[in-house]
Amino acid sequence: MSLLPADPGQRAAAVVRHLLAHDAFSRWLGLEVAEVVPGRVTLRMAVRDDMTNGFGVCHGGVTFAFADSALAFASNTGGKVTVSIENSMTYPAMVRVGDVLLAHAEEEASSQRLGYYRVRVTKSDGTVVALFRGTVFRTDREHEVGRGRDGSE
Amino acid sequence: MSLLPADPGQRAAAVVRHLLAHDAFSRWLGLEVAEVVPGRVTLRMAVRDDMTNGFGVCHGGVTFAFADSALAFASNTGGKVTVSIENSMTYPAMVRVGDVLLAHAEEEASSQRLGYYRVRVTKSDGTVVALFRGTVFRTDREHEVGRGRDGSE
Amino acid sequence: MSLLPADPGQRAAAVVRHLLAHDAFSRWLGLEVAEVVPGRVTLRMAVRDDMTNGFGVCHGGVTFAFADSALAFASNTGGKVTVSIENSMTYPAMVRVGDVLLAHAEEEASSQRLGYYRVRVTKSDGTVVALFRGTVFRTDREHEVGRGRDGSE
Amino acid sequence: MSLLPADPGQRAAAVVRHLLAHDAFSRWLGLEVAEVVPGRVTLRMAVRDDMTNGFGVCHGGVTFAFADSALAFASNTGGKVTVSIENSMTYPAMVRVGDVLLAHAEEEASSQRLGYYRVRVTKSDGTVVALFRGTVFRTDREHEVGRGRDGSE
Repeated sequence: MSLLPADPGQRAAAVVRHLLAHDAFSRWLGLEVAEVVPGRVTLRMAVRDDMTNGFGVCHGGVTFAFADSALAFASNTGGKVTVSIENSMTYPAMVRVGDVLLAHAEEEASSQRLGYYRVRVTKSDGTVVALFRGTVFRTDREHEVGRGRDGSE
Repeated sequence: MSLLPADPGQRAAAVVRHLLAHDAFSRWLGLEVAEVVPGRVTLRMAVRDDMTNGFGVCHGGVTFAFADSALAFASNTGGKVTVSIENSMTYPAMVRVGDVLLAHAEEEASSQRLGYYRVRVTKSDGTVVALFRGTVFRTDREHEVGRGRDGSE
Repeated sequence: MSLLPADPGQRAAAVVRHLLAHDAFSRWLGLEVAEVVPGRVTLRMAVRDDMTNGFGVCHGGVTFAFADSALAFASNTGGKVTVSIENSMTYPAMVRVGDVLLAHAEEEASSQRLGYYRVRVTKSDGTVVALFRGTVFRTDREHEVGRGRDGSE
Repeated sequence: MSLLPADPGQRAAAVVRHLLAHDAFSRWLGLEVAEVVPGRVTLRMAVRDDMTNGFGVCHGGVTFAFADSALAFASNTGGKVTVSIENSMTYPAMVRVGDVLLAHAEEEASSQRLGYYRVRVTKSDGTVVALFRGTVFRTDREHEVGRGRDGSE
């Protein structure tokens, strides 16, 4: 275990790197970090055959998971362990196999304990395919980065 | 392609069987159908190592996907192609590797075109781990069961 | 100021009586308490001419406020000051002037700090006109009933 | 009854003027139109004593109604009768008597029949007090402006 960097930008990057390294499902999704700054994250992923539902389009749960990972990463950039309370999502357009998606998560407002985030999921041509919103609770506990639960890293 | 059964119970079962057979991501989740009646479905799944997030618990997107599949199956039991408009979810309790989950989806109300569903996700000891709600739009198009998009079945 | 009753049923009734006595907008709505038990409240109101929107039906904000009061009353019955974090609502059917509405609020699940409520708003013929959901945060502060902010009661 | 103006800006203004003129509850709220352009509306209102709840702050239903009116006005600016399907709201900060609020409603995305709106409610110092989201359904029916239901205007 090591201390979090004091610089907000370095701290944000360290937390996201740590979370992604231990996030088995986000790795299954194949997601990559395109940008990290305090309170804001952009992720990228490509939709595969094994992510479709019974209608032959991307399963809503996959799109949700992608947005939810963006929320988790963005809301933890400050260094405190932060958890989701509530999420909602709408689906303005279909997502198909082969689409490359971006998820842009950013804080819209915050109070003492709560943070309010908005995540827009877009295709590479800019079409909005999902509008996601999340309310999170910030605990007092600091992230312990630098060493995984298995002692590695 | 074959016609849908006229009996509502048989039709519901045929639609769910068809949707699940073509739903790659629900199969990855390992979900099983525990009960199907018109407007109501119960699914079961077990949480695996590769479904966890950076906090070592089940990724919210996996729980969402499980509830979303239950919604999709329940809302399509009538035989018309029905799609999600909006979903929301809360997380009353953590889900861990090895937990066996049940998702109970049922219609709470409906209007001409819209259906309003509630999905409760519970652990085998009855603990509620997720409360999910979905609004769906019923199209005029009938499901074509009995043949997959690849001509098989 | 006086202490809250020790009996859960009496405490629930005392808190709701106190909240309603100081709730100017709920009185404008004309709402009446039909039932109070710990964690569950039913309210009644009649829709008036001055509650309509530009389409000549009951304003969504009025129906929301009615459900929100039911949530506030139900979630405070335990005696701790409890506040809303997030609410959502759908509208399965229109509400018209003269309709008498019931709002049934009940807890669906709870964790240490959070409570998850569902409020169903129905007409007297049983038609569901609104499905409302609320997540609340329970503070450590006890309600001080028995005296209003103006020293009365 | 008269035809809607062909110019999008004039049409938006005509629809909002018509809706507000017939919206009894929005008039009770005392709301004023600060800006109208196609797909986007800003409203203003001042919080009064008779809008408070049992905690002495602005009733959540009043803030919701304010945001909901902004949504209704913005989503009808195109001239087709458009109705709400689902709304959700969070409360980043308390609203008190005397606060002057602004509600900024704008479309985030749209599909053939559905529109997805975001409404931010702020105090005059810029503090975000509510984040509201709405999904709407556009009917084929045109607004009939120029004459009220009572033949006036």
